[in-house]
Amino acid sequence: MKSLLIKSLLALLLLANTAFATDPMPSWNDTTPKNAIVTFVEKVTKKGSPNFVPIAERIATFDNDGTLWAEQPMYFQLLFALDRVKALAPKHPEWKTKEPFASLLKGGVKGAIAGGERAMLEIVMATHAGMTTEEFEQIVKNWLATAKHPETKRPYTKMVYQPMLELLTYLRANGFKTFIVSGGGIEFMRPWTEKVYGIPPEQVIGSSIKTKFELRNGKPVLVRLPEINFIDDKQGKPVGINQHIGRLPIFAFGNSDGDLQMLQWTAAGQGPRFMGIVHHTDAEREWAYDRQSLIGRLDKALEEAKTKGWTLVDMKKDWKRVFPIQKNE
Amino acid sequence: MKSLLIKSLLALLLLANTAFATDPMPSWNDTTPKNAIVTFVEKVTKKGSPNFVPIAERIATFDNDGTLWAEQPMYFQLLFALDRVKALAPKHPEWKTKEPFASLLKGGVKGAIAGGERAMLEIVMATHAGMTTEEFEQIVKNWLATAKHPETKRPYTKMVYQPMLELLTYLRANGFKTFIVSGGGIEFMRPWTEKVYGIPPEQVIGSSIKTKFELRNGKPVLVRLPEINFIDDKQGKPVGINQHIGRLPIFAFGNSDGDLQMLQWTAAGQGPRFMGIVHHTDAEREWAYDRQSLIGRLDKALEEAKTKGWTLVDMKKDWKRVFPIQKNE
Repeated sequence: MKSLLIKSLLALLLLANTAFATDPMPSWNDTTPKNAIVTFVEKVTKKGSPNFVPIAERIATFDNDGTLWAEQPMYFQLLFALDRVKALAPKHPEWKTKEPFASLLKGGVKGAIAGGERAMLEIVMATHAGMTTEEFEQIVKNWLATAKHPETKRPYTKMVYQPMLELLTYLRANGFKTFIVSGGGIEFMRPWTEKVYGIPPEQVIGSSIKTKFELRNGKPVLVRLPEINFIDDKQGKPVGINQHIGRLPIFAFGNSDGDLQMLQWTAAGQGPRFMGIVHHTDAEREWAYDRQSLIGRLDKALEEAKTKGWTLVDMKKDWKRVFPIQKNE
Repeated sequence: MKSLLIKSLLALLLLANTAFATDPMPSWNDTTPKNAIVTFVEKVTKKGSPNFVPIAERIATFDNDGTLWAEQPMYFQLLFALDRVKALAPKHPEWKTKEPFASLLKGGVKGAIAGGERAMLEIVMATHAGMTTEEFEQIVKNWLATAKHPETKRPYTKMVYQPMLELLTYLRANGFKTFIVSGGGIEFMRPWTEKVYGIPPEQVIGSSIKTKFELRNGKPVLVRLPEINFIDDKQGKPVGINQHIGRLPIFAFGNSDGDLQMLQWTAAGQGPRFMGIVHHTDAEREWAYDRQSLIGRLDKALEEAKTKGWTLVDMKKDWKRVFPIQKNE
């Protein structure tokens, strides 16, 4: 009795919802990628079809930098770290003569990059460790509330891709659980991903430093230590996915060689699979870069996408709109 | 129009559901713990109340061994490891003379325990590493399908606590996301937690060994390495919760000193909080142990529960039924 009544009401509800349906992805042109996405989603959600995938297994993973938001002229988290060095400099007089901080404080971005990966790591540790997780969350929130992208002068959270926001919403409306799997810092992303992408902190996977539990005046805190815990990039992405999700995604989107193993890992499962790559081809509305770029290099994964028939999104051709607000708006 | 229609149907659905509601936790006696749980859940789910907690923040974490399923005469994962040593022994003739395997193969459980933690670690690594994640999952599933508890002779998945199953369901029906936070192996739990507890793999947090991404004949696999990655016990539990969930639970249940820091971490947040401890007091239907037990010692956390007013579940008094099937059934 109970179950019949509820079923009838649910059926009505579903009907009501469908009757008013409109295009869920209006910022995508009606080209191959959009069609491939819609075809895939309809296939795996169609009850009774041989391709049907139960809701619990509808796991979708997305890279963040260059896939959900922009990553030029350099990863936004790096710009955050550079801003933090400037903000912390008065408390660190020794930085005036100590590399890589000295170059950074004098020459800005280029001076810092000149020191290579080792310099970057030092800058990240000096700015990301030493405080509690709660304090770090607040630092990130404060920065995002005021910082502006050096070229567009827009807040970083407005540098997200409108078509990808629509894709996330479309997948969730079809029972998918959406995850971020990024080389970026897990605690750098979590303070804002729920508001900006609708992705809650427990569905964010990223690189991390170690933390330590302590009681401070009886209050428990986690202190962030200057020691790498996990790098969620390249071979690390399947490891991170396994560690956090414990099953294979059936849908994955990336944009660079750092996503290749995640796409391979997704493709390895049985049953229907969708592998997508955002190709940055639009120098006018965004940036155009691939094989030669230091940030977000797309070379091996571009080859493999072609060989294996993965979906390549040509930003210029396939996206009606790139950002929620475009250049001249 | 659309939203009004949907809202009306949802209201009807809710009404239909409530009209048929029965006691969601029939295996609990109407004593303090059940009342405390129900009062808490009603408080945080009541819209407009100052204690209301949005669905996204309704995070509940549960220890596994001794909290959701039994842990005597020793952790079930250890019994699994011992069984695996016996199964693998023909392929390892050297174990006949090599400790701790020699004692184990001769003297069984007691011989193995005699070697202490170091011996345990060696046994775990010898039985949990060296295969792919997919292979290990299958090994766990095969074992659970046939292995029987040494005393009750029942499958381990029937050694779960019926009142806790009901609590998990009750919390989820009220918008909570339920997580396991266990010192046990994350990959030992995931193959069965969804079926047994309704907790999907992505909501299981546990101890882990490292894994490595490899292409084997073009097929990507993760190989399990004989190296500790993370110990999700004591101070590790808040670290694991932060790493996987990224926000504080508002509800947590444990049963031993290994859960103390998780309970402290849960209590540290602002707003309403529920901290519960299962106290093993029922030698008749289960086991009775606390301060002196090597497995699941409950000493410091018992003190703190009393001081801080956390909810203590006296298994003998507060549970009408312990297991889904009881001794004489």
